Amino acid sequence: MRNIPFEKTLITGGFWADKQNLVRTVSMRSIYDRFTETGRFDAFNFDWKEGMPNKPHIFWDSDVAKWLESAAYLIANSPEPELEAIVDGVVDKIAAHQDECGYFNIYFTVIEPEARFTRRGDHELYCAGHLIEAAVAYFKATGKRKFLDAMCRYADYIEKVFVTEKSASFDSPGHEEIELALVKLADVTGERRYLNLAKHFIDIRGTENDRGYDRASAWYSQSHLPCREQTTAVGHSVRAVYLYSAMADIAEKFGDPELADACEKLFENITKRRMYVTGGIGSTRVGEAFTVDYDLPSVTAYTESCASLGLALFAHRMQLLRTDAVYAETVERILYNGFMSSISLDGKSFFYENPLEITPALLAVRGEIHYPATERSEIFGCSCCPPNITRFIASVANFLYTVDDENRTVFVNQFMQSESSFNLGGSPATIKQQTLYPADGKITVTWNGEPCTIAVRVPSWCDAYNGLKDDDGYIYYHAEDGEVIELDFAPEVRFITADSRVTGNEGRIAVAYGPVIYCAEAHDNPAPIRDIRIDTEAIFTHGVNTELGVPMLSVRAYRRKNDGELYTYGKAPLEAFDAVLIPYYAFANRGQSEMAVWLMAR
Amino acid sequence: MRNIPFEKTLITGGFWADKQNLVRTVSMRSIYDRFTETGRFDAFNFDWKEGMPNKPHIFWDSDVAKWLESAAYLIANSPEPELEAIVDGVVDKIAAHQDECGYFNIYFTVIEPEARFTRRGDHELYCAGHLIEAAVAYFKATGKRKFLDAMCRYADYIEKVFVTEKSASFDSPGHEEIELALVKLADVTGERRYLNLAKHFIDIRGTENDRGYDRASAWYSQSHLPCREQTTAVGHSVRAVYLYSAMADIAEKFGDPELADACEKLFENITKRRMYVTGGIGSTRVGEAFTVDYDLPSVTAYTESCASLGLALFAHRMQLLRTDAVYAETVERILYNGFMSSISLDGKSFFYENPLEITPALLAVRGEIHYPATERSEIFGCSCCPPNITRFIASVANFLYTVDDENRTVFVNQFMQSESSFNLGGSPATIKQQTLYPADGKITVTWNGEPCTIAVRVPSWCDAYNGLKDDDGYIYYHAEDGEVIELDFAPEVRFITADSRVTGNEGRIAVAYGPVIYCAEAHDNPAPIRDIRIDTEAIFTHGVNTELGVPMLSVRAYRRKNDGELYTYGKAPLEAFDAVLIPYYAFANRGQSEMAVWLMAR
Repeated sequence: MRNIPFEKTLITGGFWADKQNLVRTVSMRSIYDRFTETGRFDAFNFDWKEGMPNKPHIFWDSDVAKWLESAAYLIANSPEPELEAIVDGVVDKIAAHQDECGYFNIYFTVIEPEARFTRRGDHELYCAGHLIEAAVAYFKATGKRKFLDAMCRYADYIEKVFVTEKSASFDSPGHEEIELALVKLADVTGERRYLNLAKHFIDIRGTENDRGYDRASAWYSQSHLPCREQTTAVGHSVRAVYLYSAMADIAEKFGDPELADACEKLFENITKRRMYVTGGIGSTRVGEAFTVDYDLPSVTAYTESCASLGLALFAHRMQLLRTDAVYAETVERILYNGFMSSISLDGKSFFYENPLEITPALLAVRGEIHYPATERSEIFGCSCCPPNITRFIASVANFLYTVDDENRTVFVNQFMQSESSFNLGGSPATIKQQTLYPADGKITVTWNGEPCTIAVRVPSWCDAYNGLKDDDGYIYYHAEDGEVIELDFAPEVRFITADSRVTGNEGRIAVAYGPVIYCAEAHDNPAPIRDIRIDTEAIFTHGVNTELGVPMLSVRAYRRKNDGELYTYGKAPLEAFDAVLIPYYAFANRGQSEMAVWLMAR
Repeated sequence: MRNIPFEKTLITGGFWADKQNLVRTVSMRSIYDRFTETGRFDAFNFDWKEGMPNKPHIFWDSDVAKWLESAAYLIANSPEPELEAIVDGVVDKIAAHQDECGYFNIYFTVIEPEARFTRRGDHELYCAGHLIEAAVAYFKATGKRKFLDAMCRYADYIEKVFVTEKSASFDSPGHEEIELALVKLADVTGERRYLNLAKHFIDIRGTENDRGYDRASAWYSQSHLPCREQTTAVGHSVRAVYLYSAMADIAEKFGDPELADACEKLFENITKRRMYVTGGIGSTRVGEAFTVDYDLPSVTAYTESCASLGLALFAHRMQLLRTDAVYAETVERILYNGFMSSISLDGKSFFYENPLEITPALLAVRGEIHYPATERSEIFGCSCCPPNITRFIASVANFLYTVDDENRTVFVNQFMQSESSFNLGGSPATIKQQTLYPADGKITVTWNGEPCTIAVRVPSWCDAYNGLKDDDGYIYYHAEDGEVIELDFAPEVRFITADSRVTGNEGRIAVAYGPVIYCAEAHDNPAPIRDIRIDTEAIFTHGVNTELGVPMLSVRAYRRKNDGELYTYGKAPLEAFDAVLIPYYAFANRGQSEMAVWLMAR
């Protein structure tokens, strides 16, 4: 099995073309401006001095690297001379300031050069990873080698320090990321030693040879056990899913069944016990971490944008290890919900956390509880999410197809209006999707090429499909050259219930239309939103929220009538009203408001 | 209107005789032992030196004072030579170590004598208040003057420092309590200047003349506004209700309508917006404080035992200002629920916080959220609650009767098997109650004395009473000498719903039988307890939980059947089972368990 990279696909319309256009025309510029204002780009001049504003931070390299990577992905899709000029400028600075030995890091050159590779938690290898990913992306987009060559030299140096000399104060990254970057670097350069270096970091992590961190808090960075013995998703959730993604990469590249097995267990632990219905992960702000099974509070949900995005990366890699629709299903859950909520409809601002419920009145409480932000921001002190979001959207077509060349099978994992061209089993082919998905369930798949099998994922929300679904969740079609497969998954409004052990969702449902989960905001409904009771027998009306330009659903609902007493004997009388729901991804685009995903069912 | 003090009443049987007996035979000894082990009694030797264990704490005087006061109340009811000997011993030490000027405080004599009356937050006046209350109680119980005289000297000194000289670094108590103690001291000594001193502390509080604290955090100690301008219950909840109690005292003693009006507003703010269904108050651990209207979370409920008890003191005083059953109703809510939960059924251990819901699995969460203790303790570092609970139970008959001598009316506010003797309008009378309340609603009230009006409070949970209820919530009976009034409030199981703005109780009910609120524990029901749906149409069966020796209710209920998926399309199937509920006050007497008061209604 192999993945068809996004460069082979052009998104030609619909939901994702709109989002990619937004990133291209708005988000990239907005993030660039914010990063410029805060000194993130100037930091690459290596001329910061004590007393100047905008002191470089240890993870700034990575912030800019993800922006560069986003630019590369956009350039790969269509010419972007302005972006390319900016990237070239930064690359020149990187090349100019890279150490002779290959080392490159702004903070540990300008601020604390003596502290290089001495503090495991200080993101050096994480920054290196993102720079490597950007360099790989830019080389693939433009063929220009300068950035790639610089990062190869850096990777070589890292190999020297961490494998040959073992001269660093630690042995594995405090924030995982470089592992999956090195896999990409190996792919594009054909240099297997980068793959070996990635495997080295996986192999040593959490073993007795892994130095430089406190064992008591090792769970935070998934270093509490050797990777192959990990079965429960713990610690900082972004770190976790980046690690698991790399583990899946290495399991696949090296055919490592033990590692693959650990990945399966971790994936199952997340998706069956520790994932929000939106695909968000990380239930607590403390350590930005996973907590315990079924602990998925809506109000204090941390659900960092980068974590949900990272879970998609992990799920996507799992698909190369085993054919099962659950992986693409998880990607879909994230794409249209917990990930998509992270960017505003106008493309300018972002959520770091993506709560499933907001009660602004509680923000006024003098208390110890941290509530997530109720509105998106253009930038954060720790601004990892915005450029991660743009690179993800720009390369979203990565999730479309996986292929089995031997069996001449193309797996259609996601549904996006698109045209893709690639080789299957050595012969050229094109596959097109015509669809308004997720607003509509009709998809026309057109195949041009040698005969093949086209395996289409049936979304789990869909009961009314034509064809025979295999146990793996796919329908297998034989396709001749010019074959047109007409799919219609006919989405309906469906109610989702959570396992009874999820504290807080008892008696509540999430409303979904197709893969999109809806929510209620006080902009459209009477507060308190948590008290809305959806009449689950009533007919939903479809419409468009013209203010937001997104679909909306209307349905009969009920709310309690208060009698002025705090406590009343007897059941409270209910009054009917028409509730209006909008996609969760569109919440908080009209100012602060009460909001809830999990609504009471009546 | 005046109150009939508890000394005029003998509790002769039933619920409260059991509780008083428990306090007398178990709790007092247990607290004494724990206080002795921790050095609280030895501290009265004034011989602690650096390097010794059990360094006296600033509020230890008050811990012991409340124990002394409890002992006095028990002695007032029946001879307790052992307790009396202990009290006399402590009183001797107090007299021996009291400063010539009248000052008495262990910490500020033994540890930091130079810091006397310099730090408003350090509980000196609070300790003084509790010592004064104990002295008054002991004098009333035994006629012995030594303790009372000592405390009069201390009160005189406080008047000198705070009124005459204004030589302290602050002007009003950082922790209110002394105000209501001074009212009692004035009552028992007939010295009006103690009343004036109490009024002085009320008058100056929160004014521009009130020095010695940070205005930004003045809400914490209710010093953000002059008392007469306060309308919203804020800050540390124990401080708050002690202050409001004193305000009501002063309003009554001085006929101060402005102060009475503030009290009414504060009482209404608490009981209509900031009080748990159990009568608990204080929604957050941070500052042990009130938060905002309708913020009454069950799991993180702070609801300190002392606060709920203090609200009863406040409500009780309000009754002297205005005849309205709401005050005694509030006392009743507290008595059988949020207060009674604070002591274990075996009388040995206590809750400081009284949560309305416990989910032990959440305790394992690595997080910033503080969850209340799930089991009672025999002592706490800050052990204010245990002796407060014992003095409250020992003097619970205080809440029984108020009288209007002029109109020869006796208000029956609570229902307890008891005999009381007092003068009404100058002539002697006795009133008896024969009842198994709250297990049963039958109460036989027997009057012996000159003809009078007997006003019986109709509990708000009771719809099926005989007689004409006045707007004030009382039924007025004419009683001749020997009159027997047979009441039957015929309790039934009733469901309580909260105002829809109380986040977290949506779709949930509290089950009450008479004044007693019930809860479900996992000892008797399948977890998760939060997922239990009570069939509100089903018939409840009454029984006795023989393990706990408390009433119990059984009823048809439903729980969800999980299918192994975290999220499932469609409504989850339910399975029926028989739910068992026990009184909330009896929870956590069988080890840690899931527990919930607010259960889903089906």
